[in-house]
Amino acid sequence: MKVLIIGGAGMVGRNLAGELVASGRLGDKPVTEMTLFDVAPAATQGSAAVKVTALTGDISDRATVDGLIAGRPDVIFHLAAIVSGEAEADFDKGYRINLDGTRNIFEAIRALGDYHPRVVYTSSIAVFGAPFPEAIGDDFITAPMTSYGAQKMIGELLLNDYSRRGIFDGVGIRLPTIVVRPGKPNKAASGFFSGIIREPLAGLEAVLPVDDDVRHWVASPAAATGFLVHAATMDTAPLGARRCLTMPGLAVTIAEMIAALAEVAGQDKVALIKREPDATIRGIVAGWPQNFDAARATEVGFTADASFQDIIRAHMRDMGQAG
Amino acid sequence: MKVLIIGGAGMVGRNLAGELVASGRLGDKPVTEMTLFDVAPAATQGSAAVKVTALTGDISDRATVDGLIAGRPDVIFHLAAIVSGEAEADFDKGYRINLDGTRNIFEAIRALGDYHPRVVYTSSIAVFGAPFPEAIGDDFITAPMTSYGAQKMIGELLLNDYSRRGIFDGVGIRLPTIVVRPGKPNKAASGFFSGIIREPLAGLEAVLPVDDDVRHWVASPAAATGFLVHAATMDTAPLGARRCLTMPGLAVTIAEMIAALAEVAGQDKVALIKREPDATIRGIVAGWPQNFDAARATEVGFTADASFQDIIRAHMRDMGQAG
Repeated sequence: MKVLIIGGAGMVGRNLAGELVASGRLGDKPVTEMTLFDVAPAATQGSAAVKVTALTGDISDRATVDGLIAGRPDVIFHLAAIVSGEAEADFDKGYRINLDGTRNIFEAIRALGDYHPRVVYTSSIAVFGAPFPEAIGDDFITAPMTSYGAQKMIGELLLNDYSRRGIFDGVGIRLPTIVVRPGKPNKAASGFFSGIIREPLAGLEAVLPVDDDVRHWVASPAAATGFLVHAATMDTAPLGARRCLTMPGLAVTIAEMIAALAEVAGQDKVALIKREPDATIRGIVAGWPQNFDAARATEVGFTADASFQDIIRAHMRDMGQAG
Repeated sequence: MKVLIIGGAGMVGRNLAGELVASGRLGDKPVTEMTLFDVAPAATQGSAAVKVTALTGDISDRATVDGLIAGRPDVIFHLAAIVSGEAEADFDKGYRINLDGTRNIFEAIRALGDYHPRVVYTSSIAVFGAPFPEAIGDDFITAPMTSYGAQKMIGELLLNDYSRRGIFDGVGIRLPTIVVRPGKPNKAASGFFSGIIREPLAGLEAVLPVDDDVRHWVASPAAATGFLVHAATMDTAPLGARRCLTMPGLAVTIAEMIAALAEVAGQDKVALIKREPDATIRGIVAGWPQNFDAARATEVGFTADASFQDIIRAHMRDMGQAG
């Protein structure tokens, strides 16, 4: 089968592409061709079985998108987005990529008329906004408080409507915060959730800007890849008209994360976490949802990480660190 | 103050325009100029105090919209829409008017930079989709099951985001089904809710295609005008980031409507209602929400009709019929 990953050079796209090349399959079908599209060239290498093509461009250009869709991939992963901070800082760019770009993809599919692929779309828990219940269930209102969240939610509505009309067979997945992100610390307000695990494991100091009782909804990079693969291969009939689901994560407090780090890697690692309260980051994080009841996703077969300890161990294996 | 009504020739727009000319005020401010924009010319006449201009055009044309907004009205009522049945039948037209047209209005305002009017947007209970709870509260998920509902919900998300950013000061109101609509029977699936009252009062037979226990969420034409005026003049601070509200209606069953008709106008009128079950209409109506808890709207001062009897009496006064 032919697979197209739009946003194939980002962390989530890279992990997915690597998994598809390594396994050579998506569900029970062999993957023969994979196109990785992004603003920067994707580096994932193909194999004898899986031919990989990396293309660059801008999804807000309809002709570019028409060209991608003309290859009639069996499965399209649409992971491309201007992220939260940038969409808030640049109103035009956020709407151009996250709304117009998404619509270009959906319209390019519709324009072919007789082409009805599976479309997997990454949404975000940013579609929710305060005030929150103790745990956000599947029937809770989506009331985003950022432009990014509004754009992601508009994408969900379009995906539901195009799917209902049979134009394509869509599944939207709202990803938890991915922890532990590999690589260098970044400037994202959520970056410290990975940093307080990743840096100590590498023998480096990490800054913790919030209180120990802050709770957050997280999933490992491997769980995110699993969500995408399941979304691409699942039976969509049980979803009915509501095709976008909050993915099952772990609701863990900072204190629980630190205790898990001590258990898995030792108290000396915990000593590398420096508490430096930051009023700005505390304020941002206070507006985020902390806990969900992802019942529908669990019912249709999406699987959460088993424990935060397992998330740490998986990261250590990926990094070649002793556990 | 200057008022612009986009969709000024439709039933809701006509009623609003008539009220503003008659009272000469919007809240505590005199209305001096009113522009009525629609695809067909609005017939509402101005007065010595209120200068009325009727313009025709298409909101999917950005230059047309820029021209309307250039007059910098203090309050913009955006009531224009391709309705449910037509948006379902004509995918392109629905998205072009309901999504692109709405975005054109919001973007034309943003383009001026230093212009931040009150924008009142009519949304719909079509933003909700089955399965429903017994009463739909303000925190219930908006999961539309028609293209019209999806387009209206996208408009809500845009209105919330543009308002949050201070581009304009928006209020979205989800109107109940308007009963009793004046005029001839129409082909809308909901038309019989008005028909079973309007036709008997005029001495004509009316067809009832659904069972007596069907419940529906209704408001009178006068209540709808009241909602619009309140939305244009209210303090928006208590709305926070969620600026779109389900309007308070009456949840009445067909049996209650008929009993009210008998009470107000006599049993001989009820005899003009012919029960002709229609499987198609029953199916459509079965997918509609029946009951809401419009707590937030009530808290911020929107007022429902007192009773279905009062709705009937108001219609009879409007028609010059004895009560």
